[in-house]
Amino acid sequence: MSAMKWWGWGTEGVAFDHTDKPEFAPFISEHLGLDLSGTPAPAVAFEALDLPSARLDDGLRRALEAAVGAPHVSVDALERVTHARGKSIRDIYRHRTGDIGRVPDVVVHPGAESEVEAVLRAALDADAVVIPFGGGTSISGSLEPSAQETRTIVSVDLGRLNRVLAVDAPSRLARIEAGAYGPDLERQLNDQGWTLGHFPDSFTHSTLGGWIATRSSGMQSDRYGDMADLTRAVRVVTPAGVLATRPVPSQSTGPSVREMVLGSEGRLGIITEATVQVHRVPEQRRILGYLFASFTDGLAAMQEIAASEAAPSVTRISDAAETRFSFATRKASSPVDRVKSKALTAFLERRRGFDTDTMCLSFIGFEGSPSHVAEQRKAVGRIVGRHRGVCVGAGPGVLYDQKKFDTPYIRDFLLDHGALGDVSETSAPWSLLPAVYADATAAARRAFADVGVRGYVMCHLSHSYHGGACLYFTFAFRPSGARSPMDEYDVIKAAVQQAFVDAGATLSHHHAVGVEHAQWLEQDISAPAVGMLRSLFAGVDPGGNLNPGKIV
Amino acid sequence: MSAMKWWGWGTEGVAFDHTDKPEFAPFISEHLGLDLSGTPAPAVAFEALDLPSARLDDGLRRALEAAVGAPHVSVDALERVTHARGKSIRDIYRHRTGDIGRVPDVVVHPGAESEVEAVLRAALDADAVVIPFGGGTSISGSLEPSAQETRTIVSVDLGRLNRVLAVDAPSRLARIEAGAYGPDLERQLNDQGWTLGHFPDSFTHSTLGGWIATRSSGMQSDRYGDMADLTRAVRVVTPAGVLATRPVPSQSTGPSVREMVLGSEGRLGIITEATVQVHRVPEQRRILGYLFASFTDGLAAMQEIAASEAAPSVTRISDAAETRFSFATRKASSPVDRVKSKALTAFLERRRGFDTDTMCLSFIGFEGSPSHVAEQRKAVGRIVGRHRGVCVGAGPGVLYDQKKFDTPYIRDFLLDHGALGDVSETSAPWSLLPAVYADATAAARRAFADVGVRGYVMCHLSHSYHGGACLYFTFAFRPSGARSPMDEYDVIKAAVQQAFVDAGATLSHHHAVGVEHAQWLEQDISAPAVGMLRSLFAGVDPGGNLNPGKIV
Repeated sequence: MSAMKWWGWGTEGVAFDHTDKPEFAPFISEHLGLDLSGTPAPAVAFEALDLPSARLDDGLRRALEAAVGAPHVSVDALERVTHARGKSIRDIYRHRTGDIGRVPDVVVHPGAESEVEAVLRAALDADAVVIPFGGGTSISGSLEPSAQETRTIVSVDLGRLNRVLAVDAPSRLARIEAGAYGPDLERQLNDQGWTLGHFPDSFTHSTLGGWIATRSSGMQSDRYGDMADLTRAVRVVTPAGVLATRPVPSQSTGPSVREMVLGSEGRLGIITEATVQVHRVPEQRRILGYLFASFTDGLAAMQEIAASEAAPSVTRISDAAETRFSFATRKASSPVDRVKSKALTAFLERRRGFDTDTMCLSFIGFEGSPSHVAEQRKAVGRIVGRHRGVCVGAGPGVLYDQKKFDTPYIRDFLLDHGALGDVSETSAPWSLLPAVYADATAAARRAFADVGVRGYVMCHLSHSYHGGACLYFTFAFRPSGARSPMDEYDVIKAAVQQAFVDAGATLSHHHAVGVEHAQWLEQDISAPAVGMLRSLFAGVDPGGNLNPGKIV
Repeated sequence: MSAMKWWGWGTEGVAFDHTDKPEFAPFISEHLGLDLSGTPAPAVAFEALDLPSARLDDGLRRALEAAVGAPHVSVDALERVTHARGKSIRDIYRHRTGDIGRVPDVVVHPGAESEVEAVLRAALDADAVVIPFGGGTSISGSLEPSAQETRTIVSVDLGRLNRVLAVDAPSRLARIEAGAYGPDLERQLNDQGWTLGHFPDSFTHSTLGGWIATRSSGMQSDRYGDMADLTRAVRVVTPAGVLATRPVPSQSTGPSVREMVLGSEGRLGIITEATVQVHRVPEQRRILGYLFASFTDGLAAMQEIAASEAAPSVTRISDAAETRFSFATRKASSPVDRVKSKALTAFLERRRGFDTDTMCLSFIGFEGSPSHVAEQRKAVGRIVGRHRGVCVGAGPGVLYDQKKFDTPYIRDFLLDHGALGDVSETSAPWSLLPAVYADATAAARRAFADVGVRGYVMCHLSHSYHGGACLYFTFAFRPSGARSPMDEYDVIKAAVQQAFVDAGATLSHHHAVGVEHAQWLEQDISAPAVGMLRSLFAGVDPGGNLNPGKIV
């Protein structure tokens, strides 16, 4: 993954392009007041960065070289900068404007768990800071060293630990090294007829270990489960040695250590391997589009589906604002067209009483045998119908499926043109979701007004559970120019996050805590719970060498 | 629950009776060499117990009385003895022989969370030990004070906190106080059309808080989930105040504090309330009996069912030894008769090639709408057929359902006649189950031989998961008389537990660690993981006042 951009999302040379999407520029102009015909402002030149020299004494360097081999110890400038942060809007904004902060002093690439152990020993012996690095896609600040850190900072890139080690076919469990990227591990599993079924937005650039360290969710987690469900056993290099739990399906062995490693963001050690649930690649896979007259109708339908005997693989419904945005990103001729064809519009408006400007687009996925898929579609169809929903076929779903990993590139495109976009997601019981939605969108709009900017906020329900769902908000704005864009961003982001916890929702459903969300942790899980986390981290890592400052 | 026996399982006046089960006495005679026509030896008289006087100074007594009200602070002898231990074979054996150990000095019955807080403050101020008490059914020694404990021991009985506080119908979540007993909370939920769906063997005498503190599983957990799945939020009185997590369906807020409270056995504080998933009482509920020619066939069928699109509520298969035991406990005329009718026996032997002495009895449950149940039955039936299984109808299932909570009484009956029976359960990946089964039964038989006793070991698969299953072993023996029965028990129990961890299985699937299983914890979850638990407990409870000595 050496081609990862140091200044933005994804692979060098790949970018969002709106020239084949005729409605995009007018939409952005209308809602953000942004003229996309202007000249984009790229990131500063890499050569212009003011990179501090590496604080790496000879003793530690030799120890790290002994641990992983000299070719796998790097103080290369690009490596250090690429490993300095994740991909939050704050990370990208600062990087592209030349503010690279306290970058790691050295990047090591261990090729075996024993090498990870040796790296950790060397780092602890030298009282260095250790920050594990998977795909580097954190958007919560989980990777950033503290600006005040005076100790040597060692970034441990797990990328060489990228193999599917074994598949236990009868148990449908796979042992996979933590540094395996999404596409790489899926390919290795697919070759044997299996799938992990974990497809977060970051899929193409994130790793198994990163998913575990942040409690990731994917687009088909309704069916396959979140990473906490998928991860049956972990191996973690800790200061006390290799922690290794067993891949048993359920156990009563005190507080769950597996569930302590999940979400630990490097504070307990370096995850090297996990045993995860895998499934046979499904015979059939369908994602169908549906339209609802309102977000309220769509939420009610999803709630009823969750309470029914149907078990779809994807349950997603966008609010009206996000639906309008989706339509604005369609290509000149695309399957989404059918959704806004004149005939359908007429049908929806005249026969169903839809206002097609405020209708809501939904995707519901089905997987399994053809008969199972047919059964589920029928059951879901009945529920959708009860909530005034209309099926618009497979076209939009195919399109959604194809472009689902492209969305993060839009953020860089907007930055090129001077606008900031970000996401905040949460989960809450079904009974609270309407209020969480209303409060968070209102909070964002109030914040836009408070800082005096043009902004847009939109939302979708991304995952359904027995007792509630995840709401995923995206907001974008054009900074006023009156003060620092990041100050304005902070006001808006904080307003949304505060609305979450005030409404009884959580600070994050699957983006972790890092430093971005840490200020809301106590309001979410309560002060005694935060105290427990502190006890745990302090006990395992008394010197504060393991990714200090994250979570608490 | 004042009528709970101080010397054995369950309610005073209720006992196992074999006089209507003609095959029981011959079976016990054959396999344990025990003559049930002899005079039973009851527990010692309560009055004969040598109860140490309560170590309770006036200051603490007044503080506890101020906390919960004087009528709810008890130093009554029967209360103290009843709260001294759980219901492990060791607990019961010692209690009934008059060895009551270091009993709690005082039992308090708080009626509100604020009273629990006041109790904990008073106890910590006095440097007393606090042991939370739910139903007192632990069979892992989670309740027993250390024999060497010199501090005052306060048993906190949660029994007055027994209400279903609220049901959030759209979210299918119920807030329930931790001291609610199984039948009590099910009745309160059923009155509103809901069920928790958690039915452990101990159901009639155990509480919600106890289930959470030990990571309990129930008979229908295949469908409803274990307590770790069912418990969406917890409230716990800790030394740092009330820990309260939110009932959100999934969250990414660092290591899961909810999953630290689950299985914590009082080491982190006193659980006062939980928000749990509830379901509508199913329209239809069926438990069908099946017969397999061998345990191997049955295991393979369960594995295939777990990998299929069917989702039964119960998957249970007994080995040949347990099947024989089941037949030996049938009443003179019972639905199980059909299973051993001459016509069926002839069919199984001649047409299916069964050896009816080694065949295995299975129960598979189905719940939901009639069409869903029919669909599932059909899907399961096809799989069962592929593994030479034969459906024997609903009769045995009805019987199983009726008598499922009576089993623990058999242990007291055997004790009355001088034999010891106990259970050990584990879980493992599907691929390891045949070896775990073979190793654990062989280890038990070897241990019987080593100590020179007649013994019987039997097993069933009790829960299926994606990647594995729970195996539940029951063993019984008649002590040799050459040395202490408990010494012989220790050899046998240790042999089974060691076989579990040596074979890659876990020390316990749902009976917790307590003191009985603590010696295998490091072999199961690894030394660094045990270190993490120590850090957690020490951080939360630096004085070691919270149920010290349990788990680690």
